[in-house]
Amino acid sequence: MAKYDLDTIRHSSAHLMAQAISRLYPDSKVQFGVGPVIENGFYYDILMDQTLGEDDLPKIEDMMKTIIKEKLPIERKVMSRSEAIDFFKSEGQDLKIELVEAIPEDEEVSCYTQGEFIDLCRGPHVENTADLPQGFKLLSIAGAYWRGDEKREVMQRIYAACFMDRKQLKQHLMMLEEAKKRDHRKLGKELQLFHFEPVAPGAPFFMPKGAIIVNELTNYIRRLYRLYEYDEVITPQILDSELWHTSGHYEHYKDDMFFSKIDEREYAVKPMNCPCHMLMYKHYKYSYRDLPLRYADFGRLHRNEKAGALAGLTRVRSFCQDDAHIFLALEQVQEEIQKTMKMIFTAYELFGFDDITVNLSTRPEKKAGDDKTWDIAENALEEALKNSGHKYVIKEGDGAFYGPKIDIEVADAIGRKWQLGTIQLDFQLPDRFDLKFTTSDGGEERPVVIHRALLGSLERFFGVFTEHVAGAFPFWMAPEQIVIVPVNEDAHGQAAKELKDMLFAEGYRVRVDDRNETMGYKTRQIQKAKVPFMFVLGDREIENKAVSVRKHGSKKSFNWSHEEMLEKLKMLDSEKYPKA
Amino acid sequence: MAKYDLDTIRHSSAHLMAQAISRLYPDSKVQFGVGPVIENGFYYDILMDQTLGEDDLPKIEDMMKTIIKEKLPIERKVMSRSEAIDFFKSEGQDLKIELVEAIPEDEEVSCYTQGEFIDLCRGPHVENTADLPQGFKLLSIAGAYWRGDEKREVMQRIYAACFMDRKQLKQHLMMLEEAKKRDHRKLGKELQLFHFEPVAPGAPFFMPKGAIIVNELTNYIRRLYRLYEYDEVITPQILDSELWHTSGHYEHYKDDMFFSKIDEREYAVKPMNCPCHMLMYKHYKYSYRDLPLRYADFGRLHRNEKAGALAGLTRVRSFCQDDAHIFLALEQVQEEIQKTMKMIFTAYELFGFDDITVNLSTRPEKKAGDDKTWDIAENALEEALKNSGHKYVIKEGDGAFYGPKIDIEVADAIGRKWQLGTIQLDFQLPDRFDLKFTTSDGGEERPVVIHRALLGSLERFFGVFTEHVAGAFPFWMAPEQIVIVPVNEDAHGQAAKELKDMLFAEGYRVRVDDRNETMGYKTRQIQKAKVPFMFVLGDREIENKAVSVRKHGSKKSFNWSHEEMLEKLKMLDSEKYPKA
Repeated sequence: MAKYDLDTIRHSSAHLMAQAISRLYPDSKVQFGVGPVIENGFYYDILMDQTLGEDDLPKIEDMMKTIIKEKLPIERKVMSRSEAIDFFKSEGQDLKIELVEAIPEDEEVSCYTQGEFIDLCRGPHVENTADLPQGFKLLSIAGAYWRGDEKREVMQRIYAACFMDRKQLKQHLMMLEEAKKRDHRKLGKELQLFHFEPVAPGAPFFMPKGAIIVNELTNYIRRLYRLYEYDEVITPQILDSELWHTSGHYEHYKDDMFFSKIDEREYAVKPMNCPCHMLMYKHYKYSYRDLPLRYADFGRLHRNEKAGALAGLTRVRSFCQDDAHIFLALEQVQEEIQKTMKMIFTAYELFGFDDITVNLSTRPEKKAGDDKTWDIAENALEEALKNSGHKYVIKEGDGAFYGPKIDIEVADAIGRKWQLGTIQLDFQLPDRFDLKFTTSDGGEERPVVIHRALLGSLERFFGVFTEHVAGAFPFWMAPEQIVIVPVNEDAHGQAAKELKDMLFAEGYRVRVDDRNETMGYKTRQIQKAKVPFMFVLGDREIENKAVSVRKHGSKKSFNWSHEEMLEKLKMLDSEKYPKA
Repeated sequence: MAKYDLDTIRHSSAHLMAQAISRLYPDSKVQFGVGPVIENGFYYDILMDQTLGEDDLPKIEDMMKTIIKEKLPIERKVMSRSEAIDFFKSEGQDLKIELVEAIPEDEEVSCYTQGEFIDLCRGPHVENTADLPQGFKLLSIAGAYWRGDEKREVMQRIYAACFMDRKQLKQHLMMLEEAKKRDHRKLGKELQLFHFEPVAPGAPFFMPKGAIIVNELTNYIRRLYRLYEYDEVITPQILDSELWHTSGHYEHYKDDMFFSKIDEREYAVKPMNCPCHMLMYKHYKYSYRDLPLRYADFGRLHRNEKAGALAGLTRVRSFCQDDAHIFLALEQVQEEIQKTMKMIFTAYELFGFDDITVNLSTRPEKKAGDDKTWDIAENALEEALKNSGHKYVIKEGDGAFYGPKIDIEVADAIGRKWQLGTIQLDFQLPDRFDLKFTTSDGGEERPVVIHRALLGSLERFFGVFTEHVAGAFPFWMAPEQIVIVPVNEDAHGQAAKELKDMLFAEGYRVRVDDRNETMGYKTRQIQKAKVPFMFVLGDREIENKAVSVRKHGSKKSFNWSHEEMLEKLKMLDSEKYPKA
């Protein structure tokens, strides 16, 4: 099978699907648009009289398998432009004519034939339909405008997963199944963490339990800040457009910003914190002794993401970042990057991300700053990564125009990759704001700025992490940490309340479930709510000053004495305190 | 002296000042506008060829004293309208003619004469210039438009303090002097707490030290929330105008809001949290068992205060409140108000406010809801205040149209009054959002909403509290809590660093001052920065495992063993934990 690469397999499988549809719906005036390879499979856009439903997909799959068995040779054929146009006209494939016409004059026009089916295609393809593995599954149908133009025809887009073999397909489908179960939008609703309202697209409403998680995340980051000598600042959210002209956002980012006019002045709601921090730096005078200066800001940011692109917490319009800007001398960059990497890895370890990819993006063609500065900066970044002992991938030319950067991706519990952390050097903003510091010899120099985030947007991280842990948050983050259930309200209710008061005083989020329901019902509810601990109190527990413990996800119970209980809980809770 | 009330004294003193100016500047075409009594004194608006400066004020004061000594009788004279107009025309007092013309037809036109000076006035006045005490002082000169109309003449407004006697005046001037020293804008700059930038009028930039105070305040309030069973929520900041139509803000509050248009939809930046909380309540179903439900929100609010009205932190455009909305049944109101009063008084005690005024405002003429509901609500509020054991003042008819309210004012360390807390009942919003809860008999009822704030806007409280403590924040709030100074860097630097590490690990904000400066210089700097504790480390202290302690504001030092130190600091820090 290794004769073909996966992209070729996927591409030929798209043709296979088109052929199957042609055969199955001969009277529906079927026309094909484009059928590209995508992550994990392919799709094909189809225009036809009949509206397909999910029910039709198995039928199409069956026909695809039939065509494989027919062992049709797949042949490439180069045509002249006019031959191709005549051919597709005769076939009623008007959309293909548009595609032919869009091929640049100096390029060949090629088609691929398999049996009675012929399709315009650059190729390459497998040699015979029999070469195609049956590692595909048609997943869903969606609407899509022809050529993405909302004034043109609405096509039916069929999405398919496609892999080298059935085993890989099965793994992928299981992952999709698991992802569906873990979908943070679904869990967010079930666990009453957050929801959205039509009056605020892309701006989450965090219910009490969700707000606890946001605050725990924020406080954890604050503890890291204390250790790493960051200073938190609080800055305005609505600032005169003048500032955004100075920073360059007006020129480059205007379409993604919210504007408001007051007293004939135009203001913008901030999409980023950086310009505020530049102003703060400029407000005082600094010497080399004050650097690095680290301003952290949990300020709420607003970006006008397209309504269609919004998706739960992972793509929002309103969010906070664990955002900081570090002002420092160029020669301090390497050490600072090492510290930042250490900080990032400390956080990722706590959150249980151990499959981490580090990308170093270097100077692009169009760039600010001279080559010498870029040399120093790129070297500093690379040295820092080497010293940090992390493997990294160099992405040549992928840096921002204002400086090189490090991006950090993590794989979650079911293998999906998410970019979280970013460390970007910036030679441009300090220039635009004319920032300076006094050097040891009394001269003046321009600081470099590092933009950096650990978790990135806290909202997005909330979504990613919810899926990573499938809604079962670690003890220190859990909105409800402990539910106490008295076996019998009359006999054990008072003891339950006293235990609750004790644990509340210790700082835990604890509740007594004294409703008039069965133990079985309560247990199921508590498990469903993914509360880390359920403590059951009956005669024996009260007599022994103990609790019967049921951990989330476990079917067995065990006992803790009060002392053990306090000790274990304290240990679990202390995970949130990063070590210096 | 008790022959006249203070307002009469102040009013006659304003005439006295006008007469003095007439005498001193006979060639300056002096015209008088209005000269009303204000808090702590009076002002008079004057139009004249010569521009007065602060230097001229003592001269005017001297002339006022001269006229007092002249013992001129002050006499009332009723004129006909045309007599008055003719008289003021002959005197060149055109502005007074306008004032005469503005007097309603059915009112008398009266003037007061003292010696050569005559002024249009309703009175009353003292009988003789000799009756006037010398408890006045001319304070400042400002510009003001005639009749507040910016198209009219710019007048010179002279402000004066005026009291019953010199002693009272002196007290007032001392308070003003003290207030100047305590001005939070001045202290904010000196202590590097916050500042403003021209690109964001009314939106403070909190520097690291200011952000610590904001966060400490917020966290203290969060601890109170935990004890009083409030749930913090996090809500959007920019919401479709549709919501503001539903809530009534669009109709009543539009001019104070920031709007932004995106994809043909109009959004507003929220000026209040309430509508978000109404939506949240509406998102789930609640029964009587779930009430009271308390949603707290530190969401950032934006209100378009007039640029001219902005003043440091006490009047801003961008701020957070310790804002909460309580959803409950009408019969729960009394108990909830008692709890809220307890919560408010707990906080005020911590912040050292002991002179507190409680105002209860009852139904206004135009109101929402029926009289029966108002009866119950007002009774509940009054009973709650009685049970809370606080004196209160009833302000008849001063309630909002949507419900009665309790406002709480505190006097600061120099006697100025500030309104901080507010508890407002609302029958209107639950109606507009059609909120419901299931009653014990399975029916449906509308909840009442309580809007309430303890400290109000945290920004404003920051300003008020800074002035109250003159920038010397209590230990638990202080941005820097301890500075350690080694007597000699070489001999004691290492011990200083170790002590710092120990205190840092205990959670304190501590720094070593190891700069190459004298002990005297460092001491002055630390005192000026109002750091609660300076610990000095020399041979003896290190040998005894002790520190030499200098408290802020004290000139004496004393010793603490390390144990005592840890114990005392912990005690001071624990002030921030409210008792259940």
